[in-house]
Amino acid sequence: MTRDLGSLFDQLFDPDHIVVVGASADPAKWGNAVALQALRGSDRHTISLVNRRGGEVLGRQVATSVDQLDRPVDLAVIAVPERGFEEAVDGVLAQGARAIVAITAGLGESGAEGQARQDALIRRVRDAGAVLVGPNCLGLVDNHTATYLSSNTFRPGGVALLSQSGNLAIEVDRLFGDRGLGISRFVSLGNQADVGLVELIEACAADEHTEAIAVYVEDVRDGRGFVQAAAAAVEAGTPVVVLAAGASTAGARGAHSHTGSLTSDAAVVAAACRAAGVTQVRTPRALADVLMSLRQRAQPRGRRVAVLTDGGGHGVIACDVLEAVGLEVAALEPATQSALSEALWSRSSVTNPVDLAGAGEMDPQSYARAFAALQQADDVDAILLTGYFGGYSGGEDGLIGLGPAECAAAKQLGVDAAGRKPVAVQSMFPESPACRILAEGGVPVFAAVEDAAAALAAAAVDPRSASMLAMPAPAPPITAVDYTSARAALAAAGVPFVAAREIHSAAELHEAAQELRPPYVLKALGLLHKSDAGGVVVGLPDRAALYLAYAQLSVGLAPPAFSVEEVADLGGGVELIVGARWDARFGPTVLVGLGGTATEVLGDVQVALGPVDPLEAERMLRRLRAAALFDEHRGRPALAVSSAARAVAAVSWFAAAHSEVAELEINPLLVTPSGAVGLDARIVPR
Amino acid sequence: MTRDLGSLFDQLFDPDHIVVVGASADPAKWGNAVALQALRGSDRHTISLVNRRGGEVLGRQVATSVDQLDRPVDLAVIAVPERGFEEAVDGVLAQGARAIVAITAGLGESGAEGQARQDALIRRVRDAGAVLVGPNCLGLVDNHTATYLSSNTFRPGGVALLSQSGNLAIEVDRLFGDRGLGISRFVSLGNQADVGLVELIEACAADEHTEAIAVYVEDVRDGRGFVQAAAAAVEAGTPVVVLAAGASTAGARGAHSHTGSLTSDAAVVAAACRAAGVTQVRTPRALADVLMSLRQRAQPRGRRVAVLTDGGGHGVIACDVLEAVGLEVAALEPATQSALSEALWSRSSVTNPVDLAGAGEMDPQSYARAFAALQQADDVDAILLTGYFGGYSGGEDGLIGLGPAECAAAKQLGVDAAGRKPVAVQSMFPESPACRILAEGGVPVFAAVEDAAAALAAAAVDPRSASMLAMPAPAPPITAVDYTSARAALAAAGVPFVAAREIHSAAELHEAAQELRPPYVLKALGLLHKSDAGGVVVGLPDRAALYLAYAQLSVGLAPPAFSVEEVADLGGGVELIVGARWDARFGPTVLVGLGGTATEVLGDVQVALGPVDPLEAERMLRRLRAAALFDEHRGRPALAVSSAARAVAAVSWFAAAHSEVAELEINPLLVTPSGAVGLDARIVPR
Repeated sequence: MTRDLGSLFDQLFDPDHIVVVGASADPAKWGNAVALQALRGSDRHTISLVNRRGGEVLGRQVATSVDQLDRPVDLAVIAVPERGFEEAVDGVLAQGARAIVAITAGLGESGAEGQARQDALIRRVRDAGAVLVGPNCLGLVDNHTATYLSSNTFRPGGVALLSQSGNLAIEVDRLFGDRGLGISRFVSLGNQADVGLVELIEACAADEHTEAIAVYVEDVRDGRGFVQAAAAAVEAGTPVVVLAAGASTAGARGAHSHTGSLTSDAAVVAAACRAAGVTQVRTPRALADVLMSLRQRAQPRGRRVAVLTDGGGHGVIACDVLEAVGLEVAALEPATQSALSEALWSRSSVTNPVDLAGAGEMDPQSYARAFAALQQADDVDAILLTGYFGGYSGGEDGLIGLGPAECAAAKQLGVDAAGRKPVAVQSMFPESPACRILAEGGVPVFAAVEDAAAALAAAAVDPRSASMLAMPAPAPPITAVDYTSARAALAAAGVPFVAAREIHSAAELHEAAQELRPPYVLKALGLLHKSDAGGVVVGLPDRAALYLAYAQLSVGLAPPAFSVEEVADLGGGVELIVGARWDARFGPTVLVGLGGTATEVLGDVQVALGPVDPLEAERMLRRLRAAALFDEHRGRPALAVSSAARAVAAVSWFAAAHSEVAELEINPLLVTPSGAVGLDARIVPR
Repeated sequence: MTRDLGSLFDQLFDPDHIVVVGASADPAKWGNAVALQALRGSDRHTISLVNRRGGEVLGRQVATSVDQLDRPVDLAVIAVPERGFEEAVDGVLAQGARAIVAITAGLGESGAEGQARQDALIRRVRDAGAVLVGPNCLGLVDNHTATYLSSNTFRPGGVALLSQSGNLAIEVDRLFGDRGLGISRFVSLGNQADVGLVELIEACAADEHTEAIAVYVEDVRDGRGFVQAAAAAVEAGTPVVVLAAGASTAGARGAHSHTGSLTSDAAVVAAACRAAGVTQVRTPRALADVLMSLRQRAQPRGRRVAVLTDGGGHGVIACDVLEAVGLEVAALEPATQSALSEALWSRSSVTNPVDLAGAGEMDPQSYARAFAALQQADDVDAILLTGYFGGYSGGEDGLIGLGPAECAAAKQLGVDAAGRKPVAVQSMFPESPACRILAEGGVPVFAAVEDAAAALAAAAVDPRSASMLAMPAPAPPITAVDYTSARAALAAAGVPFVAAREIHSAAELHEAAQELRPPYVLKALGLLHKSDAGGVVVGLPDRAALYLAYAQLSVGLAPPAFSVEEVADLGGGVELIVGARWDARFGPTVLVGLGGTATEVLGDVQVALGPVDPLEAERMLRRLRAAALFDEHRGRPALAVSSAARAVAAVSWFAAAHSEVAELEINPLLVTPSGAVGLDARIVPR
């Protein structure tokens, strides 16, 4: 039976008749807390409580079974012990429930047996045309439909929170409260046995009360579905911010023991976020800060930040912190400096940092005038106001009594900021009246400058710096993965290689020597690391040298085969590594980096979801720290980066069409001023 | 006249008779605020107010001149307009003042003329045997002697705050308040025209009420003096934490326009902090957090952190954040896991992250038991407790009423933590009773896990990971800095070079070819970038090739001279860059990094204050990201790193003895399995 997810989700987030199965009178049990919360929605929903022992819960008579209820069930919350789980789910399905929120734990996350039970149950749920959230989840809340199906309450607001951790959601709710944010919907993902992150992102993007979507996830499951759903939400004007955990070795270990989850490489998750246009964060505080900052709805334009301060020290620290997060604090253009000079007094410094140098004390409107000048400046993409602002209202020092003037400046700043360049305010007086006015005007106010800088950095990211291309049709699986076959398969896919010939005898060696131009390279094949075992001899100037090397390697290593190859001109070239891996969650991924030992030692790599087109491949290459090597450099001509990019794209399309390949690598891909050519190839089947 | 700084500082921080010159009745003027503050210390000090217009200030009769006072002056605060500054200082010196706090701005920081006036005045101050703080400063406070000579008040406590920014000090005071910290002494450094950072660190380290020293500085001035003073303080048990600003390009620009300060390279300041054993931070919040963490007085031992949580998500995020700041979260040893299993319940995960998985809810004492087990574990250097702890006291959810048990657990945690492994607690309920108990027990409690991780990372740094050696006696200045002379000077200093000979004619070429072994390198000398202009020809196999290359370069470039050199065996070697620079503040500094184009592209360098001994030089080399290249690697033998280290040390001693050399560089220094040898040399005079 195909399910109409749209109407099922309507029932999930705004059901008529809600049944709490496992409602308990014991305040230490979830079944008590959930029942208590659900009853808060009694004005909008009919709430029934069920417990097999009957009795009274929270002053209500409890039914001993769902079939004793006098009307069909729309949504059921299951909070029974694990051994009674299937019976409870089957029971509510029989009573018509089309939405189930399963709090019970001990199923899929507990091992193979629990997984099998969970799988069987989900098949029954789907066959019944129903949807299930969880199991092993903390419930679901819709603050706009008074659907309170969790043990916790969440401050109402515009952010949908989808979380794989319950405690984390509680922390996020608290952090939101400090920032004037609130929650439209909360869904605890649990095991994502039926309904998962992808469907919930779609449902929340379609919710009129949701302005932004916040995600905490350890296991993205349907990785490409996530990218599509998130990209669609972003495209339609609902920003998505993702806290993806499990990036570290220990974090992945923790996630696995926590939820039985598989985590993907941090680089792959980051690539997916870039492709989806979502902002990625690492901590709950950063999640809340970025969402606060996104309320500005400012259009990010670039990385050039103007720092505005009334204290030299604060300006200097802000510059250091901004540059450390990759933003630019360039000296301002003469026109901008002139405009600032008019707005300020002679002692003010107008280069950037813009230091009011006491002008703010004399007249807080200086801030508003300087701010307006920076909003109009062509050479400024974002503005960071930092330092004392907020203290002029008559702080503890009792020095200055300019409260009203400062508040007027704050109001003006709020008006000037609305919907224009991204702005962040750091104040040592974030609770001051002036800062409260700013916050109420939608300007994000931070106590710490590093948080303000991080929010600006997040806002400066191009929302669509990458994209995810559709997968190609699967190609016929490759069967041979030896060196020569791997080379041939990749060459057929469009990667240029130097001319080479596999040989198995002295007779074939003679043929190869005639066919190929000297100088030669001779590689012994069938060894694990060819170059480690001395199995590669380079720079053989003529046939005599080739024959000698062949004789030596035959005696020393006795390999089953050799490859005789022409020599690429290494002069003025750079060796890259180009690789692809099949990620269990995200499918094909492609990697570029500096080749050779540099790869392992320097970790200068870029990763993207495959396939990529040559344009995206070139962007990846240009994002390498070592990208300066590609350009004209001390008299060396520029390298043919676009040729390299075409090879990278070819590798990525090959990988995307071959899910049977776990991993492949061209190392090195030599890039010279005239082109790119593979010097080695390796394919590892799954 | 030599000054006894010890007794002068006694007078500075605890004077008998204080005069505020420039005391004002206008609440908008510094002279009003400072007078108001100074008078708060009237029980301990005699306070006189002076203003040339006389009248009444804050209910006190004001003298129109210091010579009208009926007793000698001990300390004078000067808060007069800049034009009356010298007269005011001369006046108080004449009345016996031996300590001056100069708030007046517009002197040394305003340009050359102001600098000259300031210099002349400081000579008079010193001749009078007095000391001066400032000018252009915000004053001085000693909370233990009721010496309040600033417009601001600071919460009393154990941290001495030395700051080059006034507003910053106000922010730090507020941050301290949130963390149970307070200030013993505050000194605004101002222009450091007489008394500077170095003397003030010494004075505060000697102060019995100062437990730690916090520094905000843009211009360290006497860099090596700073390292010595800070190292002595740390050695004697007073930790020093430095927020050094101006590391970025924009930050340096801001610092210059703010105070006229010169800033040093961020890498040099970081090297100085390492050598002094001080902790370096980048922001005010980090300054406060690290100081809070230092109150534990725990002995840092290593980088292995155990994560303890009652929420899987919090554990996973903590792991990611800890690894991101360079700490290790390794799986725990079987013995530790056993001890934890005994302390917890069967669902708990004891690998690391240690996830109580509900045990904390059932029994908050689980935390104390697990914590005790981790304190005893040999494979754990520090402990991070993260997540829900603090919420069991009956939070908004009303689920659990275990307040007293949790508080008992908190007390036990505090006892177990005291003076042992570094601990950080992150709680989403930092204001809860349980967390307050922890904080009062000296355990640092953070609201954000990234702050907790940063504090642990700062605590894990070996306090004496480097040291500063004494400067050698100056050597006779070198006069010639051409290539051959530079090479000879450095060779004489102990850097091995390949054999080479400078030639100016074909006759000399013949001699060189006879003297040196082929193959040869030929370098055209006297060109800016030899290799850019094609002025270096390598791999000349024999004399014929050498002669041909000589002829071609002579025609093409017509250089004034050539260098004929033997060829080093590049096989299996790594090219380093070794450089030295004379820093205006810190004197000789030495740099090592990967050589060639890699230096500029990868920025993989290490910097130290010179001179360094071979042991420290080897530590620098081993700290390079690329250090793995030095070790045995895929069958390649290990490189002679100790030979390279000796060459680095030789360069650093040479640089330290030659202050007339602005910059020198050996690029590359080739390191092979058998040794290290310089292939090029460059010296730039000041």
